[in-house]
Amino acid sequence: MQHTAFTIGIDIGGTNTNWGIVNREGEILHTGHLPTSTAKNPTAFFEALHHQMESALRQYNHSDIQGIGIGAPQTNFHTGLMMNAANMPWKGFVPIREIAETVFHLPVQVTNDANAAAMGEMIYGAAKGMRDFIVVTLGTGLGSGIVSNGQLLYGHHGMAGELGHTIVMKDGRTCGCGRKGCLETYVSATGIVRTALELLEKESEADDTALKPESLRNMYRGNKNIQAHQIYEAAQSGDPLALRVFRNTGDILGLALANAVAVTEPEAIILFGGLAKAGALLFEPTAEALEANLLDCYRNQVKLLPSGLREREASILGSAALGWRA
Amino acid sequence: MQHTAFTIGIDIGGTNTNWGIVNREGEILHTGHLPTSTAKNPTAFFEALHHQMESALRQYNHSDIQGIGIGAPQTNFHTGLMMNAANMPWKGFVPIREIAETVFHLPVQVTNDANAAAMGEMIYGAAKGMRDFIVVTLGTGLGSGIVSNGQLLYGHHGMAGELGHTIVMKDGRTCGCGRKGCLETYVSATGIVRTALELLEKESEADDTALKPESLRNMYRGNKNIQAHQIYEAAQSGDPLALRVFRNTGDILGLALANAVAVTEPEAIILFGGLAKAGALLFEPTAEALEANLLDCYRNQVKLLPSGLREREASILGSAALGWRA
Repeated sequence: MQHTAFTIGIDIGGTNTNWGIVNREGEILHTGHLPTSTAKNPTAFFEALHHQMESALRQYNHSDIQGIGIGAPQTNFHTGLMMNAANMPWKGFVPIREIAETVFHLPVQVTNDANAAAMGEMIYGAAKGMRDFIVVTLGTGLGSGIVSNGQLLYGHHGMAGELGHTIVMKDGRTCGCGRKGCLETYVSATGIVRTALELLEKESEADDTALKPESLRNMYRGNKNIQAHQIYEAAQSGDPLALRVFRNTGDILGLALANAVAVTEPEAIILFGGLAKAGALLFEPTAEALEANLLDCYRNQVKLLPSGLREREASILGSAALGWRA
Repeated sequence: MQHTAFTIGIDIGGTNTNWGIVNREGEILHTGHLPTSTAKNPTAFFEALHHQMESALRQYNHSDIQGIGIGAPQTNFHTGLMMNAANMPWKGFVPIREIAETVFHLPVQVTNDANAAAMGEMIYGAAKGMRDFIVVTLGTGLGSGIVSNGQLLYGHHGMAGELGHTIVMKDGRTCGCGRKGCLETYVSATGIVRTALELLEKESEADDTALKPESLRNMYRGNKNIQAHQIYEAAQSGDPLALRVFRNTGDILGLALANAVAVTEPEAIILFGGLAKAGALLFEPTAEALEANLLDCYRNQVKLLPSGLREREASILGSAALGWRA
């Protein structure tokens, strides 16, 4: 029987749900996962999850578990509801906080993935000890979690932090949200693919990079399509067109971040998620555009950092971090 | 001798300094003003201010005065410094919080004008009881004070809330800050003059509004210049060109506010200051552009409100509101 304080972090995704029992130091002492589609009914799902954790939980005093944090798509901190989340087996408004509290007999906090990532960075990662920072999650879309005065910004209805849906280009690219020019149509895994396709379609086939097998032009030639990882690989091998895709992406992200700095003046901006793993390819043009667009008083003041969490652990730690608040 | 709790609000401007002793209800019980240039030395200035207040202060128990709030240009909440403020008789970095504490023997908080306005709206004005809102001050420039989770956002170095210096037009108008396309180059008293001059210079003199004495074209004809109040007067009388100036201004402000909503998700946005007094001329196009550019989940959720403070009292009440925190 271990005597100290712990939280349970649960990361609910469209396909899989991962959980972990975590201590103050961010060590994941027990972990497991369950297909989210295990049960069509969310109560049955949380019961199955509880059942799976039972043998692990028996090793702790119930009173040593401070709470449960849940990160899940389209989930609202204030109301505890998951709201019409796409790609989830449960439809409509699902009161996941209430269900989890009933099943686990523990206090529960819920929020969306990007806010959970921000909590994870603050408690265990690159933002340890910071009171003002922004986490930008770069996946299929672009999410963000914003911490100011040491607190996550939830907003009036729990919907703050949608940097991905700030409009950066008037009458720009059509977004899944129905509007035009949203940041995530340019800066995300799908965004860089659109940028690459635009450049490939606009420019002549006659450029000499077409001859190199590792060039983006050559990869595109076959099925007239391209994937995010191919842009990364081509850029790694020095393909000029792929490098321009990252340069353009960084230019747009850097300007958007400079505008966000003028709102909350963070100590650091942390780039998290798949696209952020492109490393210098993304960080260098982004940092340049950020500095070039910052107001004088912010220049050379804002750190641009990679996530401080190991990829496999990040989502559990982010949710677990929220559990301390629960 | 009145027995209850009070604060002193001091609003320091380039020309005049206004002060008031204020109770919880926002009544200004005593007030006065002093030219800011009274003393070249900031310590001597605060001593003169203290001297002026003496007979008023004698009517209160010192212990009933909770604190002093000071609103002043370029003044930092965290450090207590006024930093290279333009148009002020004191140059460089001036520790106004420390000086005021020494002279008055009271706790002091300082911040810039826009943050003081936000505190004033929260304690006494249109944002009473709100925990998430944005105040936009529309004067010569555009300032903003942002409250989230019931707290003013100060940022890492106390420099948050510079909405006026978010870039809304790539390679747009040159700004006093040295960059291009800042919001305040379009939306401010100087911004609408620039918009009017651009339209007047671009378009033919042949439009029929030139014949009407109250038309903007006619006002412009003499000295090839125009002032903000003339644009307002022409728009009031129905001049199409002046109405377009307000429409364009509202379009740009509405989009910028929609992007700010995606960051902090406020319950309301409050427009404060000279330009906001244009009323429906500014509020209608701004509200339309705001709604048109909002992400689905924010639509019809965010109130666009005028200030709830009387103009002459606003700056004293904003500073006094800060005093409760001191």
